[in-house]
Amino acid sequence: MEKNELFSLEIKQPDEGIKKASKERWDNIAKPLDGLGEFEEMISRIAAIQGKVIPDTSRRALVIMCADNGVVKEGVSQTDSGVTADVALLMGKRKSSVGIMTKDQQMDIFVYDMGIDSDDTPKGVINKKIRKGTTDFLKDKAFETTECLEAIETGIDAVKNCRDKGYTIIATGEMGIGNTTTGAALLCAICGLDPEHYTGKGAGLTDSAFRRKMRVIKEGLKLHRKEKIFQPVDSKEEMLEVLSSLGGLDIAALAGVFIGGAMYGMPVIIDGFISAVAALIAEKLVRGCREYMIASHLGREKGMAVIMEELSLNPVIHADMALGEGTGAVMLFPLMDMVTALYKEGTRFEEAHIEQYERYDK
Amino acid sequence: MEKNELFSLEIKQPDEGIKKASKERWDNIAKPLDGLGEFEEMISRIAAIQGKVIPDTSRRALVIMCADNGVVKEGVSQTDSGVTADVALLMGKRKSSVGIMTKDQQMDIFVYDMGIDSDDTPKGVINKKIRKGTTDFLKDKAFETTECLEAIETGIDAVKNCRDKGYTIIATGEMGIGNTTTGAALLCAICGLDPEHYTGKGAGLTDSAFRRKMRVIKEGLKLHRKEKIFQPVDSKEEMLEVLSSLGGLDIAALAGVFIGGAMYGMPVIIDGFISAVAALIAEKLVRGCREYMIASHLGREKGMAVIMEELSLNPVIHADMALGEGTGAVMLFPLMDMVTALYKEGTRFEEAHIEQYERYDK
Repeated sequence: MEKNELFSLEIKQPDEGIKKASKERWDNIAKPLDGLGEFEEMISRIAAIQGKVIPDTSRRALVIMCADNGVVKEGVSQTDSGVTADVALLMGKRKSSVGIMTKDQQMDIFVYDMGIDSDDTPKGVINKKIRKGTTDFLKDKAFETTECLEAIETGIDAVKNCRDKGYTIIATGEMGIGNTTTGAALLCAICGLDPEHYTGKGAGLTDSAFRRKMRVIKEGLKLHRKEKIFQPVDSKEEMLEVLSSLGGLDIAALAGVFIGGAMYGMPVIIDGFISAVAALIAEKLVRGCREYMIASHLGREKGMAVIMEELSLNPVIHADMALGEGTGAVMLFPLMDMVTALYKEGTRFEEAHIEQYERYDK
Repeated sequence: MEKNELFSLEIKQPDEGIKKASKERWDNIAKPLDGLGEFEEMISRIAAIQGKVIPDTSRRALVIMCADNGVVKEGVSQTDSGVTADVALLMGKRKSSVGIMTKDQQMDIFVYDMGIDSDDTPKGVINKKIRKGTTDFLKDKAFETTECLEAIETGIDAVKNCRDKGYTIIATGEMGIGNTTTGAALLCAICGLDPEHYTGKGAGLTDSAFRRKMRVIKEGLKLHRKEKIFQPVDSKEEMLEVLSSLGGLDIAALAGVFIGGAMYGMPVIIDGFISAVAALIAEKLVRGCREYMIASHLGREKGMAVIMEELSLNPVIHADMALGEGTGAVMLFPLMDMVTALYKEGTRFEEAHIEQYERYDK
């Protein structure tokens, strides 16, 4: 994909008329107005995205992007890069955390090797390896802009494939040792924030390793943002440059998934911090993607709330989670099922011979 | 049940050894430490309550307490008391909101008529009617202390029945037009708060009706708390008096359910505001009940966060819900299933030949 092609993409607004009809349907069900709160809004947004009052969230795909990060060499994580391939192998067998959590659910998992630092792609994993891990961002750009565009395009294509196979909703996930470092670096670069306040402990760090992680991120920002450090990214061009400089290939591919969701009219569920950073990048690269995103949970990483605020999204699960793999995103599915049952089959006020509630607040 | 019998109940602490073993089990699973955050704590707490490292949350009962509130005569709600019986009738047929939302779930629903303002108890509802609605708390005590103790005992017995039938976990729910008024009045009385800040709009109110609701609660506090208005309740005796004065029979019965959970070693899930008020009352009447409570969601009513803080519980769903009936509590079940699957069957670090993460923070 060419840069200009990406930058000139135009996203259609979800159907406002459908959204209105959906809200009316909710108000007719015998319960307090807005009784299911954010869940009502969620279903109405998905209805508008899919262009039908009764949305179909039954055909589910989880797209997991895996890649390694050169910055791990700086000692920013407890384990080394080899674990990425180990976990991807488990994922391919549906034996990783998210696979086991969803064993009783109708959901297919597509695991992509975007840049695992291994010669082979683990069995059961789709080989889209762009390179064997990124360059340590303290040494150089994490990857070339052309590689970045390739990763984004792979994400977009993943959505197209899902749509062609008949899936109706996509959850996102990732795996990549070191990606809370690349994620925090990207967030700070994009929003002009100080890593002192937005670095998290990832999968657990000693205090000294945590301080090192913070320092590494700050050094990375100095090197790649130069005099623009602590200033927000203000153009698509700059966004692409920042993404290529700080990495990672998992995040670039996930940004592609969010862009693809908007292009193909598919709701895409944000998982935790890494996935949220990718969502933010998607919106910065292609305005309007946000309308196709569904928030799931507010993870433990500190920057998560900033991103949700930037995107005006309200995650419904607040459980201090920090697992990745899409574990938070897929938790939304059974909740959606319960809420959708009420939306589709709920007793109407008139059936129950109860007078409908009036709306006074709008 | 006699007052002194209630006040002298002693609650055994959940098993700390089991909790520790449960946490170790979590740490052995190939995922970041505490990766599932609050959900790991939830499962470990349930394990400690049930006294087994692998808890059983598969046999589920939802106990819904229904009652009418005399204070509705003061114009504090959009609909009149008749709707309580209408919705209870739907509940009995599993056609109310919570029944439809859980139609695909293994879960039994027990609906209690604690004091619906109707001659008969709706079909499918258990008749434990203590009286046909309470007295308007601006006129007199909502009900007699003996009636209050009877309602609490009914709640305790409901748990005993569930235990005898083999249920392993209980969710709470309620229905009663006007119970956000009694709930807010109770919360303000218990914690010494000003209703100006803790009155919610319930199922929706005009601004003038909302101001009236706030005034009614304040008048109720003046009448029943007298010079102790804005002072927290500081004895069991006083707690019982406040509960009998401000109502309602649904809340008293739910307090009994939380007490019963602690007595019979059953985890009991708090739903929204009304249920949370009952949980707080249970803890004030019988110290230690809190250990048997599981929080589910942070509802829209303003006082909810105060109660969660008081009880040191962290609800995992934040969706601005305001439906009642146990709808938020039952949303925890499918999430528990996913989390439990990982807890029971998760790949261990050693199986995956990955080195276990070390815990640096404790």
